[in-house]
Amino acid sequence: MTEVVNLTTMEVDALMDVDGGLNLTDGHARLVLTPQQSDIVAHIPEMFVEATRRPFSEIELAAHKAFFGAVGQHSAPVGTGRILSCYSSTLATDILARALPADATVAVLHPTFDNIADLLKTRGLKLVPMSEEELLAKEWPGAPVNAIVVTLPNNPTGLITSQGHLESLAEHAVRNNQIVIIDASFRGQVRDAQYDTYAVLDAAGADWVTIEDTGKLWPTHELKIGLLAYSERTKLPIEQAFSESLLAASPVVLQLITELAGDWVDGGYERARDLVERNRAVIGEFGLKLADPDSQISVARIELPVNGPDSAVLHKEMLARGVHVLPCSPFHWADPESGLRFIRISLARPFETVQKAVQTMAEAYRDLTPSS
Amino acid sequence: MTEVVNLTTMEVDALMDVDGGLNLTDGHARLVLTPQQSDIVAHIPEMFVEATRRPFSEIELAAHKAFFGAVGQHSAPVGTGRILSCYSSTLATDILARALPADATVAVLHPTFDNIADLLKTRGLKLVPMSEEELLAKEWPGAPVNAIVVTLPNNPTGLITSQGHLESLAEHAVRNNQIVIIDASFRGQVRDAQYDTYAVLDAAGADWVTIEDTGKLWPTHELKIGLLAYSERTKLPIEQAFSESLLAASPVVLQLITELAGDWVDGGYERARDLVERNRAVIGEFGLKLADPDSQISVARIELPVNGPDSAVLHKEMLARGVHVLPCSPFHWADPESGLRFIRISLARPFETVQKAVQTMAEAYRDLTPSS
Repeated sequence: MTEVVNLTTMEVDALMDVDGGLNLTDGHARLVLTPQQSDIVAHIPEMFVEATRRPFSEIELAAHKAFFGAVGQHSAPVGTGRILSCYSSTLATDILARALPADATVAVLHPTFDNIADLLKTRGLKLVPMSEEELLAKEWPGAPVNAIVVTLPNNPTGLITSQGHLESLAEHAVRNNQIVIIDASFRGQVRDAQYDTYAVLDAAGADWVTIEDTGKLWPTHELKIGLLAYSERTKLPIEQAFSESLLAASPVVLQLITELAGDWVDGGYERARDLVERNRAVIGEFGLKLADPDSQISVARIELPVNGPDSAVLHKEMLARGVHVLPCSPFHWADPESGLRFIRISLARPFETVQKAVQTMAEAYRDLTPSS
Repeated sequence: MTEVVNLTTMEVDALMDVDGGLNLTDGHARLVLTPQQSDIVAHIPEMFVEATRRPFSEIELAAHKAFFGAVGQHSAPVGTGRILSCYSSTLATDILARALPADATVAVLHPTFDNIADLLKTRGLKLVPMSEEELLAKEWPGAPVNAIVVTLPNNPTGLITSQGHLESLAEHAVRNNQIVIIDASFRGQVRDAQYDTYAVLDAAGADWVTIEDTGKLWPTHELKIGLLAYSERTKLPIEQAFSESLLAASPVVLQLITELAGDWVDGGYERARDLVERNRAVIGEFGLKLADPDSQISVARIELPVNGPDSAVLHKEMLARGVHVLPCSPFHWADPESGLRFIRISLARPFETVQKAVQTMAEAYRDLTPSS
């Protein structure tokens, strides 16, 4: 078996840890259900019955309406047939990667979750990095770039491409005949990222594709949907790629999402935020430094001082102490060295889990640093 | 949007039909739950709680044990780490397609479900057809073929590769340094296909990969697992391809499968068989001809006489009459013409649905045939 070093492999290792190690790797919500969520889950057996009685298209439409409404995307093409429900956002990304022209050059935000770059590369596309600094300076890539991928908010930094910046990007893309691709998998967690991006993209007349995800919002044990939406202008063979990958998402999961989106609007968002912010504060309490103090997403980067161990060393030491986290080099898919001072931890975990993990990290860091 | 003509596209159209048309396209079980299955589904809320409490690896292992045991595969590599749980058998196939060497030539059974050939071709592999006649005559392909794909039982014909034939294939493959790939998605439905294929493959010393599926057995509305298993000899980077596609299947779905596999052993198999066989008999009752009278799977091919309309014409007429079925040309992925006399209908539907659809087909056929 070829050795693999992508982030998901480390997340799989953490998940399969049989020695009871703490798993703070993946961005999935690994939490006990809130009472409100428990009430919804209790109705799943009825959703099975409903899935036999009601037409699939009706169930799917209700889920799209509820989800896009709950995350502020009121101009999303709900009901047009241009939103495809996939098993996951990863599958949605792969479907898009397959539908892009085989000789396309794609600019991808850097750093960002390595899976996006990996899926595009595996399909044979050429990638060029676009840094967060370039994004903030509105220095958009020109030829030969055919498509520009922005993660909104970005993972792992939490950077939010503002409405003004998205307008600038969309106008640039129209002038240069480029496709704007937005991976909004973490959008549901952050109100500031919930301005109506579909309205912005359509106002500019852009050719766009977006990926949305329910998987980062709710502790539903992989019962989730990745949504792949595209503009009226889009000429890519997305439907054909979709039909190669799946027939349809589960109408039971779609009903679950309709209900959870309703709860999200009704206090669920605030309940989830409170836990994440409480968990983020723990990092400072143990003397560790948040790399992105303004980030609002459910993962956080910790920045390691230059005079101590780097993240590769610290990551290994933490594994030995039974705590799984992610070293950040793989996020820097075009320049792994530049990620060496960062560690990512997931905050969508019970408070005690985050507390114990951060304490372990602070201790491991201290033990590895020569006393001055 | 490029026009698409694969089978899944027709299945999607049937699923999205808002005029209440009858859907006999896909091989998924679209049935009301049996009382026993309802009892299991009623416990899903508890499976959510369990998924938080028990380690994932334990939940997954229990599902693998229960499923492989229920379908007679006692030598499957349960507990070795060489069984990967995917969202679907399609995703398992795509992961395998990605892991095969980019320049491989693959022999694929012909006819068979077009998605298998499509996924391999999309990943750039070269395909050659292997007919059912060649399989039955043990005329196995030699160089330059690197891998041989057999669907067991075959879809849509129901042909079962016997133990003796699989032994012959495995020995041939070992001599010729080829990988044996078995898509056993329909195996759970047919006792005759449940001889221990893992024992056969390992006894021959073969390099093998298998795909198993829970999605064709139970009416669980796409809450299913596709299983990708491989031999100790297999050197393909399957784990890497897996980690590009998903982190893990749902521990809730895995628990559901454990329970449904238990019911399958405890009378569920016979209950499902009885319905399918009753539905298959309907075809003859309306004067239509079963192409594969020995087939035991939950889909059936109807053979159209040569002096009447072909399946493309009949398919169109049936759509006009509100019945969705599949014309068989796309199954004949290397020679669509040879599928023109066949229509496939799904039998895993309520009896009344199959009865009405077959009646409509008989009438449509009569109306399209010039009176002699």
